[in-house]
Amino acid sequence: MKLTILGSSSALPTSERFPSAHVLNVHERLFLIDCGEGTQMQLRKYRIRFSKINHIFISHLHGDHIFGLYGLLSTFNLMGRKNPVHLYAPQNYQGILLSHLNDFDISPGFEIDFVPLSGKEPLKILDDKYVTVTSFPLKHRVPAFGFLFREKPHDRNIIKEAIEKYNIPIIKIPAIKKGEDFVMNDGTVIPNDTITIKPPEPLSYAYCSDTSYFERLSSFVKNVNLLYHEATFEADLKDLAESVGHSTTHDAARIASEAGVGTLIIGHFSARYKKTGNLVEEARTIFPETYPAREGDTIEVGKPFRPS
Amino acid sequence: MKLTILGSSSALPTSERFPSAHVLNVHERLFLIDCGEGTQMQLRKYRIRFSKINHIFISHLHGDHIFGLYGLLSTFNLMGRKNPVHLYAPQNYQGILLSHLNDFDISPGFEIDFVPLSGKEPLKILDDKYVTVTSFPLKHRVPAFGFLFREKPHDRNIIKEAIEKYNIPIIKIPAIKKGEDFVMNDGTVIPNDTITIKPPEPLSYAYCSDTSYFERLSSFVKNVNLLYHEATFEADLKDLAESVGHSTTHDAARIASEAGVGTLIIGHFSARYKKTGNLVEEARTIFPETYPAREGDTIEVGKPFRPS
Repeated sequence: MKLTILGSSSALPTSERFPSAHVLNVHERLFLIDCGEGTQMQLRKYRIRFSKINHIFISHLHGDHIFGLYGLLSTFNLMGRKNPVHLYAPQNYQGILLSHLNDFDISPGFEIDFVPLSGKEPLKILDDKYVTVTSFPLKHRVPAFGFLFREKPHDRNIIKEAIEKYNIPIIKIPAIKKGEDFVMNDGTVIPNDTITIKPPEPLSYAYCSDTSYFERLSSFVKNVNLLYHEATFEADLKDLAESVGHSTTHDAARIASEAGVGTLIIGHFSARYKKTGNLVEEARTIFPETYPAREGDTIEVGKPFRPS
Repeated sequence: MKLTILGSSSALPTSERFPSAHVLNVHERLFLIDCGEGTQMQLRKYRIRFSKINHIFISHLHGDHIFGLYGLLSTFNLMGRKNPVHLYAPQNYQGILLSHLNDFDISPGFEIDFVPLSGKEPLKILDDKYVTVTSFPLKHRVPAFGFLFREKPHDRNIIKEAIEKYNIPIIKIPAIKKGEDFVMNDGTVIPNDTITIKPPEPLSYAYCSDTSYFERLSSFVKNVNLLYHEATFEADLKDLAESVGHSTTHDAARIASEAGVGTLIIGHFSARYKKTGNLVEEARTIFPETYPAREGDTIEVGKPFRPS
């Protein structure tokens, strides 16, 4: 599981920073999270394949999180896409999107499967072979949602030597990987934990943008390996942050600390900050494992922070 | 008068090319022509001041010419803009824009003065102290318009030595600059052309994107110093170009040749062409003074092509 940052700015992009967009790669399936203006150019720049994106998550209906979607959908169409796009967005976006397609005379050659986000409780919005995705409410000026991506538990790994030693037939292997003991022809029971080893822990990533601090948020992102949390402002602008529905560095770090996450990435930086050093330092006073979002960085979830 | 290219791609941007947008600088007043996705990032990259843009011209309602407008208007608003924006676009865009502002809960703190484009004849859409702008119809899949920017004739330049020699009072100078003779106190008439010199010819720039070839087009852009004309395809794709309402290199060069323009810039290149060398060579067989549009290039109108 790895995360690529496409944009780290808040509403005003700068010459260095694009608006919000992340790509999460889970076993080579790509999840696009927010889609600010220029996302399709950033995807090209970082050589991310459009055809592998089947799920798009929009946190809320502010331009810096969605104005790249129209261009991306047009491009999908021009590229001859046939596979459906599963689009998760606040519920009122469905009508807006339909009007837009109509206004610009766009008839997509692929299905757009719209999944509406609403309500005040976490909601499982995707559940497939490899991953579950849960949306949860944020606290912003308009309805806004965070997303929690959690790998499904892996099967146990069977020890190769055990297969030979006990002459285990191939047909039995799936059940053993799920944790069953192996029963030999003579009735001898070989306990599962002597012929398999524990798989790696399932990994998890949570995305929180845009939001003010609220206590319950940390319960939604409990123990994730990697948390992205917006930190639009430095700590001294707490009142401004609160009034516009955003977080400071300290707010983001508090959530990371209270949730006991592995690593915190902060982003959505106000254009007033030319450099991110001080923002990161502030967050580290509360949560030491904090790093800045930076365009083009790819981060391995669950490993020490060493972007490529 | 100088032109900066912000985007040279057709509908599919590449890692090198952004969608259509040009900035024309006329006496430090900036005219934005088309506004593809990412225009605001390109403006920042090339250090063009947002506050100097008061007029925006949209050629037609295809995404690669307009999807950057929503972000740019939002940014104007976030920057606290108060000056009106004069927006020239196909007439049905007014309703689309109003719905959009409503959908995304954007209340601009500045006036958007919408000037509708329509019809089959050239139309003077702006006429101020320095410049006239005329729209003219193109031939595309949806209503599309080109734009002709023409400097107003300059006043004649008064010869400094003549002011002293004939003791010309300051109050007489404006009339002399407009071409009047100077009459001395004793009744002697000093002919205008002995005390003034001819000003430089007014400069002109025309923008044609997107369009198929049609004969009348060259009459709309007659004798301009600089013509931008789309050349989406190489000459061998003439039938494809025609069927999708676009031009080949030869079409663009024919218009430049028939109109007797000074310099031709081609752009709106299909993503299939990684390099533009062959496109330019093809056009030059018909119109030698052809050059490629390239992101970030600034071209002095009416001077030999030497982009900075």
